Amino acid sequence: MGMTMTQKILAAHCGQEHVKAGQLIEANLDIVLGNDITTPVAINEFEKAGFCDVFDKTRVNIVLDHFVPNKDIKSAQQSKQCREFACRHGIVNFFDVGKMGVEHALLPEQGIVTAGDCIIGADSHTCTYGAVGAFSTGVGSTDMAAGMATGKAWFKVPAAIRVELTGSLRRPVSGKDVILHLIGLIGVSGALYKSLEFIGPGVQSLTMEDRLCICNMAIEAGAKNGIFPVDETCEAYLKGRSRREWKKYEADPDAEYERTITIDLDTLVPTVSWPHLPENTHPAAEGGDIKIDQVVIGSCTNGRIEDMEAAYNILKGRHIADGVRGIIIPATMEVYRTCIERGYTTAFVDAGCIVSTPTCGPCLGGYMGILAEGERCVSTTNRNFVGRMGHVNSEIYLASPATAAASALTGHITDPREV
Amino acid sequence: MGMTMTQKILAAHCGQEHVKAGQLIEANLDIVLGNDITTPVAINEFEKAGFCDVFDKTRVNIVLDHFVPNKDIKSAQQSKQCREFACRHGIVNFFDVGKMGVEHALLPEQGIVTAGDCIIGADSHTCTYGAVGAFSTGVGSTDMAAGMATGKAWFKVPAAIRVELTGSLRRPVSGKDVILHLIGLIGVSGALYKSLEFIGPGVQSLTMEDRLCICNMAIEAGAKNGIFPVDETCEAYLKGRSRREWKKYEADPDAEYERTITIDLDTLVPTVSWPHLPENTHPAAEGGDIKIDQVVIGSCTNGRIEDMEAAYNILKGRHIADGVRGIIIPATMEVYRTCIERGYTTAFVDAGCIVSTPTCGPCLGGYMGILAEGERCVSTTNRNFVGRMGHVNSEIYLASPATAAASALTGHITDPREV
Repeated sequence: MGMTMTQKILAAHCGQEHVKAGQLIEANLDIVLGNDITTPVAINEFEKAGFCDVFDKTRVNIVLDHFVPNKDIKSAQQSKQCREFACRHGIVNFFDVGKMGVEHALLPEQGIVTAGDCIIGADSHTCTYGAVGAFSTGVGSTDMAAGMATGKAWFKVPAAIRVELTGSLRRPVSGKDVILHLIGLIGVSGALYKSLEFIGPGVQSLTMEDRLCICNMAIEAGAKNGIFPVDETCEAYLKGRSRREWKKYEADPDAEYERTITIDLDTLVPTVSWPHLPENTHPAAEGGDIKIDQVVIGSCTNGRIEDMEAAYNILKGRHIADGVRGIIIPATMEVYRTCIERGYTTAFVDAGCIVSTPTCGPCLGGYMGILAEGERCVSTTNRNFVGRMGHVNSEIYLASPATAAASALTGHITDPREV
Repeated sequence: MGMTMTQKILAAHCGQEHVKAGQLIEANLDIVLGNDITTPVAINEFEKAGFCDVFDKTRVNIVLDHFVPNKDIKSAQQSKQCREFACRHGIVNFFDVGKMGVEHALLPEQGIVTAGDCIIGADSHTCTYGAVGAFSTGVGSTDMAAGMATGKAWFKVPAAIRVELTGSLRRPVSGKDVILHLIGLIGVSGALYKSLEFIGPGVQSLTMEDRLCICNMAIEAGAKNGIFPVDETCEAYLKGRSRREWKKYEADPDAEYERTITIDLDTLVPTVSWPHLPENTHPAAEGGDIKIDQVVIGSCTNGRIEDMEAAYNILKGRHIADGVRGIIIPATMEVYRTCIERGYTTAFVDAGCIVSTPTCGPCLGGYMGILAEGERCVSTTNRNFVGRMGHVNSEIYLASPATAAASALTGHITDPREV
């Protein structure tokens, strides 16, 4: 029996010719990642275990992104702990205030993660890097600690679901609509501990931003990872960006999949996940009665330059509805700077929005747009669980940047093709 | 005995020809102000007292500036309470996310406060508006509640200190250096419940930003208010900006002052207040051994466009020191937008700084740059009390934007004339 893309990467990283679903392996890691919330816990474990050195100071990445510039004393102490650890161990890729960005936008942008990599990160959305043809998954802080010290991690080789994409996306429908549609189809446990392997002729109509967004939310279907083939679009993205040589892995023709799901991209419409689960999907066009208080455009899911462009295309020369707070968060300093250069930021401000420094902030109820009781937010983030963005009686509607921007204009959930 | 500027404004607002220091009066208010922290308390008092209406919906101002976009559920609830009150009472000048700005930068910029006004605000730095020739002072939330309902407030007429300014400022020495120098001379209680009346030939060398900064920190010497004469510079500022007609009040030639302090502007040097009191002033040039972790440029004291320009002149084409976080906070959306237009924001980002949305945030330990244990910050804010910006064992050094920017470049407290 052949191997999937994921299985091939794992086999190569554990020095075996062949692995199969369910097998326990110890894999060599290319990249280990943590943020300002998870790294302090990992540092404590690292030190408690008596580890002295990190396995490779160029491969351990620490990104301050959740609560920086720090929102309170506790988060300031956490950042300080990260800073001191990074200094002590000579961590090359330590991203502090001024260099920071939302980790899963930053690492691909900076060419730190690349095709063929085996990656763990102490953050559930580490699965994002499947978009560049890497095996990449979220782990706990203890696994991060062990990974920092040894450069290795244990995995159970995942079985796979094949997601066959046909047709092509019709903008403003985007990668976000693809992944919300898929989660709507299979549910939040629909890919539990499996690989979501995206394949098929529809892939070529997806930009890298689409793919990063799709893989980012693989975890929201319970997947161990999401992954795309390394095609011309991907190689063009990696060229001049990837800091290391990369390797393409292709699924064997006889790779085993537990299930194949076919999605015809031509038929997709702007899609929104109603509260309180990402699987609770509806066409955006059904949201006309749902009045909103806030819109957030950003995060590791949708804070890249193409996401900003999608919002710009809707918002330019217009003004958001009275009573709506528009919060736009370019995910990295590079995206932030490009938004200024291209005139997006000024257009956003003129439209009545504010543009934040890069941060995960509102997505996880951290800061920069927390919801009060009874408030509703259309958000391009990845989770709409009860209380995720603030008060337990608040509501989050997950959507693409285009849908979020259109909704900001009207004050209710809106199909971006209608504005 | 004649009256001071302040006494003349108060006399006009209580319908008396003459008032004298120590007299209790009830004055009519032109403007009542609150922010997202103090207004909810005022609303509760307003409603508890059974008030039904505000005295004038064009004169009550509510500015969300301390913790917006909201940093937590509590602040979200407070903003919501302000929003609902503003909506219920038809408050014209309600500044929500997207329109917000640091209140004491916003109200002069928007022409809401003007010469001759009598103003209370539930925020200690309400004394800022003396720069436009208004009597303006901070009050508690209960006084704000009564002021919103009745349009009146009780005052004890303040005695005055005359601050005679001679010579002229030599840039990059700025208004911030003037007020720090003055507080260093007289101490944090040096003007307790008195008016600080600035006068003399040196006034003409002060820009409106200098004056706003100087009056802003009058409270840091304990003053009831600070005030400048309405000269050509002030009238040029008010023209096309003030939403109402204004009135100039001049001190009588025989006005009584408890004390006259003369400051020769020619002799002033970049000045820094060492922890933990604004009166603890030193020349910036003495700070070479004081290594810093963070720089904050912004706030109601120094977040105006001229402050941004001063920082830009130092930072453009350069990069801040390793290990320093540079946090720049344009105080209003207009300042924020102008910084982009003029290329300041891009220069700040290229220098390694981040540029926040308008907020009071770090000044009061709110968010956007809270200090960890043992950290030092050079800040253009107004208070360096123990724990003000975070951990009880952190230190704040108050300085001008130029000094703060120069210090960011070197990583220690630095005279801006030396970089």
